Amino acid sequence: MEQLEKIETYRFSVEPFHVDFTGHIFMGVLGNHLLNAAGRHSHNRGWGIDQLNEVHYTWVLSRLSIELDETPSQYEHVEVETWVESVMKLFTERNFLIRNADDGRIYGYARSIWAMIDVKTRQPSNLLELKDGDILRYAITADEKPCPISKYRPSRPSSEPAARTINTYYSDVDINGHINSVKYIEHILDLFPREVFEQHRIRRFDIAYKIESYMGDTLTFICQPTDKLLPNGQPAEQHIEIRKNVGAPAHPEGDSVIQAKVLWE
Amino acid sequence: MEQLEKIETYRFSVEPFHVDFTGHIFMGVLGNHLLNAAGRHSHNRGWGIDQLNEVHYTWVLSRLSIELDETPSQYEHVEVETWVESVMKLFTERNFLIRNADDGRIYGYARSIWAMIDVKTRQPSNLLELKDGDILRYAITADEKPCPISKYRPSRPSSEPAARTINTYYSDVDINGHINSVKYIEHILDLFPREVFEQHRIRRFDIAYKIESYMGDTLTFICQPTDKLLPNGQPAEQHIEIRKNVGAPAHPEGDSVIQAKVLWE
Repeated sequence: MEQLEKIETYRFSVEPFHVDFTGHIFMGVLGNHLLNAAGRHSHNRGWGIDQLNEVHYTWVLSRLSIELDETPSQYEHVEVETWVESVMKLFTERNFLIRNADDGRIYGYARSIWAMIDVKTRQPSNLLELKDGDILRYAITADEKPCPISKYRPSRPSSEPAARTINTYYSDVDINGHINSVKYIEHILDLFPREVFEQHRIRRFDIAYKIESYMGDTLTFICQPTDKLLPNGQPAEQHIEIRKNVGAPAHPEGDSVIQAKVLWE
Repeated sequence: MEQLEKIETYRFSVEPFHVDFTGHIFMGVLGNHLLNAAGRHSHNRGWGIDQLNEVHYTWVLSRLSIELDETPSQYEHVEVETWVESVMKLFTERNFLIRNADDGRIYGYARSIWAMIDVKTRQPSNLLELKDGDILRYAITADEKPCPISKYRPSRPSSEPAARTINTYYSDVDINGHINSVKYIEHILDLFPREVFEQHRIRRFDIAYKIESYMGDTLTFICQPTDKLLPNGQPAEQHIEIRKNVGAPAHPEGDSVIQAKVLWE
């Protein structure tokens, strides 16, 4: 199989309501486009969520990392290439290249990790045993198609006090009744005041999805700056954790739903 | 000019993260697509926000009403037709037809009202005087191209206590620094518990944008059911008002930002 057949290209334009007050695409909206690109790539190769549902399997997003030298601006045309870098027993690594569709300049790259689970048991499935290992036909090695950004190693904030607790509502949940992957990104970035976005750009955003939360769960955000500083003395990086239902009598510490990291420049 | 040239057709697919837990498109996402369709129609006729900005004018959305016999579902292909029904001195009425792109069945219609303002003075402009009344060339009468849904007449809830007060953050604001038109729709629907969406479908959503609010403003939601009841005895209709910065010492009653109405079936 040619390398080209292993790669899917997905195009979109940066819409007016999808940019922040600086005129650049919201990280959550970009994440949504990457997930759409992933969905289309899988579907066109017989591994789409719709096709897997018929055999009682589904993809679960485990990690997403986006690193941008430049953030796409309003009305720009963007092209996303996506491909599978590796397939292990329980996970696949899927990468993305994000570039301007008109002049080809590269905005940045993204990495993601996906697990396949059995819909009935919610247990992970062995990807190499499904369809006689057909998925391996689509993998491209990092030598053939590099993704020059590092992998994310999640780490928890330590003992920082909670920055905010929110309730979750109708607009937060997806078709499965889970808080949707993109909404977590929105809520995390809503922790930061206007001045941070006025003075800095998000260079990299990492998120690890640990367990699911549901409409009506409360989400508590813990946000801890690391020692890295920007030239103006502001924190360059924060570790974030989202815990659900903290303070419930039976289980007051709650459960860790999300770990994330924001890197500013 | 042919009627066809006055109508713009805009297509989209209902994406996985753009549907609610019932598998139907979020009203806010549909609203966003309608606004994109409007933007493209205006732009292609020389009346786009980008083109008007050069001469220091801009469009301001004043009202939006969406009425659906059926709500588009995940993965469906949707076609939106939009056209200008009338042009008055200070407002234009723009309508929408929303149908399935594959089999042509009509989901519903929408109406909107737009004002043109001078960016410097924030005062309304006389649309008939701009570009020698060029905009009139695009109007189609209601006889030629009907939009069979009623017009919205906003009305305030009376003395109902506030249902919720929220803070506004980074993800709420658009490129102008205003809380974005679509986010108001999200926040309004977030007032309703899960059971309401499980048992009922939104038949019609109306919203009137009165004044702008900004990142950091608090928004207080007042929600009052009317006398109309559904067969199961639940309210069929609610009037909603959003007031900003209620309780501020100098101006405790706040200011009315939004009036809206939700009709269930």
